[in-house]
Amino acid sequence: MKQNVLIIGAGGVAQVVAHKCAQNNDVLGDIHIASRTLSKCEAILESVREKAAMKREGVLEAHQVDAMDSKAVAALIGKTGAQIVINVGSAFVNMTVLDACIETGAAYIDTAIHEDPTKICETPPWYGNYEWKKRDLCAEKGVTAILGAGFDPGVVNAYARFAIDMMDEVKSIDIVDINAGSHGKYFATNFDPEINFREFTGTVYYWEDGQWKEKKMFESGRDWDLPVVGTCRAYQSGHDEVHSLATNYPEADVRFWMGFGEHYINVFTVLQNLGLLSEQPVKTAEGLEVVPLKVVKAVLPDPSSLAPNYEGKTCIGDLVKGTKDGKDFEVFVYNVADHKEAYEEVGSQGISYTAGVPPVAAAMLIASGEWDAKTMKNVEEMDPKPFFSILDRIGLPTRVQIGGLGGEDKAWDA
Amino acid sequence: MKQNVLIIGAGGVAQVVAHKCAQNNDVLGDIHIASRTLSKCEAILESVREKAAMKREGVLEAHQVDAMDSKAVAALIGKTGAQIVINVGSAFVNMTVLDACIETGAAYIDTAIHEDPTKICETPPWYGNYEWKKRDLCAEKGVTAILGAGFDPGVVNAYARFAIDMMDEVKSIDIVDINAGSHGKYFATNFDPEINFREFTGTVYYWEDGQWKEKKMFESGRDWDLPVVGTCRAYQSGHDEVHSLATNYPEADVRFWMGFGEHYINVFTVLQNLGLLSEQPVKTAEGLEVVPLKVVKAVLPDPSSLAPNYEGKTCIGDLVKGTKDGKDFEVFVYNVADHKEAYEEVGSQGISYTAGVPPVAAAMLIASGEWDAKTMKNVEEMDPKPFFSILDRIGLPTRVQIGGLGGEDKAWDA
Repeated sequence: MKQNVLIIGAGGVAQVVAHKCAQNNDVLGDIHIASRTLSKCEAILESVREKAAMKREGVLEAHQVDAMDSKAVAALIGKTGAQIVINVGSAFVNMTVLDACIETGAAYIDTAIHEDPTKICETPPWYGNYEWKKRDLCAEKGVTAILGAGFDPGVVNAYARFAIDMMDEVKSIDIVDINAGSHGKYFATNFDPEINFREFTGTVYYWEDGQWKEKKMFESGRDWDLPVVGTCRAYQSGHDEVHSLATNYPEADVRFWMGFGEHYINVFTVLQNLGLLSEQPVKTAEGLEVVPLKVVKAVLPDPSSLAPNYEGKTCIGDLVKGTKDGKDFEVFVYNVADHKEAYEEVGSQGISYTAGVPPVAAAMLIASGEWDAKTMKNVEEMDPKPFFSILDRIGLPTRVQIGGLGGEDKAWDA
Repeated sequence: MKQNVLIIGAGGVAQVVAHKCAQNNDVLGDIHIASRTLSKCEAILESVREKAAMKREGVLEAHQVDAMDSKAVAALIGKTGAQIVINVGSAFVNMTVLDACIETGAAYIDTAIHEDPTKICETPPWYGNYEWKKRDLCAEKGVTAILGAGFDPGVVNAYARFAIDMMDEVKSIDIVDINAGSHGKYFATNFDPEINFREFTGTVYYWEDGQWKEKKMFESGRDWDLPVVGTCRAYQSGHDEVHSLATNYPEADVRFWMGFGEHYINVFTVLQNLGLLSEQPVKTAEGLEVVPLKVVKAVLPDPSSLAPNYEGKTCIGDLVKGTKDGKDFEVFVYNVADHKEAYEEVGSQGISYTAGVPPVAAAMLIASGEWDAKTMKNVEEMDPKPFFSILDRIGLPTRVQIGGLGGEDKAWDA
C-alpha cells in the first residue's frame, strides 16, 4: 500500500491531476505539487481550494523544483514522504524524474515518452531509446513505473488489451483520437505548441505486416464514423502507444489516427512550409538569433486560456480486429468526454481532462496494490478492468461497440 | 541642364537604377551609389561592370552613407557633385534625403511615399503628411522634386494624365497591377517583406464620389481580363498614387487594384490572423523580445534571390473612363514586362525592373530640362509624352487600348 502523491509539473494537465488527486485524497493521502515556477503550483492549489475539491482534510502543498535535476527531485520525494510520483511535466524531464524514483523507491507514473529537446523525431521503438533501458533496474529494485498512463498513450493501451482479451487472435489495432470541440479562436493548440507541433513535424511511424513503416504527416487520411461526434476525418500520425503496442503485440498492425480539420491543416502547412515551426535559430536583419517555433508559441493563445469557452466533445477509442471462435471479430472501445463539463469540474478543457484523469486512476491502483507492479510496465501489460472501474467513477467511462464501429453499444462491463 | 546622379539605396530596385543610369551615362554623367552597407553598393557596381552596362567611360563609384542623416547626405551630394539624387532607399528616409536636396539644390526623385517606421498606415492624403509640406520651400529655392516616379506610383500617374488629356471630362481612374510571373518558391514577397506586408495590413483608402472611403484588404475583389496575362483577380488596396491623383483630379473616382493569387492570400491571412505580421514585439517563454514580422522576414526568401528563376510577365495599367465629344469614352493605358528579360538585362526580377527603370527616365528628363520643374511635382503634373518616349526606348513601352479593355490595341503614339 503506497500513499502520498507528488505531482511534477504545473501546466493544464497538472491542474486536472491535482483536482482529481484532491477528490480522491482518502485513497491517495497527502498531495504535493512541484514545478520550476512555484506561483504556477500555487495557482493550481488555489483552484483546488476554490472548487472545494479535497474529499477530506489533508495535506496540499506547493514546491519549487527543477525537474531536470534528479537529485533535487529525489530530495523532494524524501522531504514530502511521497510514495507515488505523477510526472506531468515537460516531456524532457522523464528520465531525471524516473531516476529520482529509482533512487528513492517511489512509484513512477508518466503520460508521454521522454524526448530529447534537440531531436524532433525519435526512431522506433521510442520507449526503447530511453525508458526501457531502465526496466531491469526497476525490477531489481522493485520500483513500480507505469509508462504512458494518460489517455493516449494510456487508456487506449488498456482499450487494446481489453479488446484483445476478448479474442483468440488480434490482427489490427487502430487508435482514433478526435477532438470535435471548438475553442472559438482563429487557431490554437490544445497543448504547449512546442510539444504539439513536434508531434506532426516528424516522420509518421506505424507497425504493419510485422515491421516498421513510414509515412509523411497528412499523407494518409480517412473518415471515421464515430459515436456521438459523427463523421470526422483523421490522419495517420506517429504516437507513443504505437511503439509499445507493436512490441507487445507484434502480430497486430498498429496505427494511430489523429483528427484534424482542414483549417488546422492549412495553418500548420503554411507555418511549416515557411519554416516557422523550426527549432533551428534564424537571424533577423538586425542580427537577433531567434527560434521561429518559440515566436509562433508566443503569438498563439495560451492553451489554458481556451478552457472557459471550449465547447463540444472528444471521442477517443480503439478499433481492434481479430478472430474469435474461428470467426472475424471486431470491437470498438471508446470514451466520449465533454469540454464544458471538464471546465465546470476542474477548470480545464477536455484535452487536459482526458490526459490528467487516467494517471490519477493509475496512482489509485498503485495505492491499492492492484497495479503496484514492482517493475516497469506499459499500460497494456496491466489488468484493464480495475482501471476502467475507477475511470468510470472519476469521469472517463468506457464504452464498447461489439462488432466494430456502429455495433451494439454498451458499457464495457454491461 | 543637370548632371551626375547619386543613387540612395542598394536593394533590388537600386540595382536596376544603377544599370539603367550606366546604360545612359552619356546623358546622366557620373554615377554614384550610396547606402548604409558599402559592400551592397559595391556588389551592384560589380554587376554593372559584368554586364558592361556603361554606355561610355565614366565615373562609377560606391559610397557609405546613413540616409537618415540629412547632413551626411548633403555632404555626399557636395563631395560627388551630383545634381540629381534618385532615392530608392527604404521608405523611411525620404524626408532626410529630400532635406539634403533642398539644402544643396540637387534635384530629388523618389518612388514611394515617406513612411514613419512606427505607423502601419497613414491617413489620407499621405503626401500631405510629409512631402507636400516642403512644396513651398522647394518652389522658393527652385529645387526640383519629382515624387513617386517608379512604376506605381509613377508611370501609372503618367498613364492617367495621358488618358485624361484625351478626354473632355474624367470620371474614374482604376489602376490595376498584375504580376502573373512565378518564382517557383512556396511563398516569397517581391520586395522587402517588412515593406511589402505593410501595404496590406492597413486600411484600404480610395476616392469615390468626391470623398475618401475605406475598405478592408481583400474585401473587394474582381476579375480583370487583361492583355497578354489574361484574366486575373485583383483586390482593392491602398496605394500612394490614389492620394495624389485624387488631389489633382478630385472629380474622378480613384481606385487601385493589386493582383493576388489564392495561395498568397491564404498565407498572408494565416500570418496576419496569428499575429505574425505585427511590428509590436512579443516576448517568448524564455523572455526574449522579438518583433514577429522580423522573424517572418528572416525565414522568407531574400527577394533578390528570386530573380534567376522568375518567369512570366507583369501587366500594369490604368483603365480611365470619362467623356469625349459628349460621349462616354474609355481607354486602357498599360505596359507588359517580362521577368526573364529583366534578369538577362540587369540581373533583377521584373518587379524591381518596373520600379527601377522609370526614375532613371525621370532623371534623364531632368537632365534634359524637360522635367526640371524647379518645384515639387507628382508625376501626373508633368508632360507624360517625353516620359513615354524614353520608357519606350529603355525597356518599358507604353501601349493603349482605345475604347477600354479589349479595345483597339496600339502603341501610345501610333
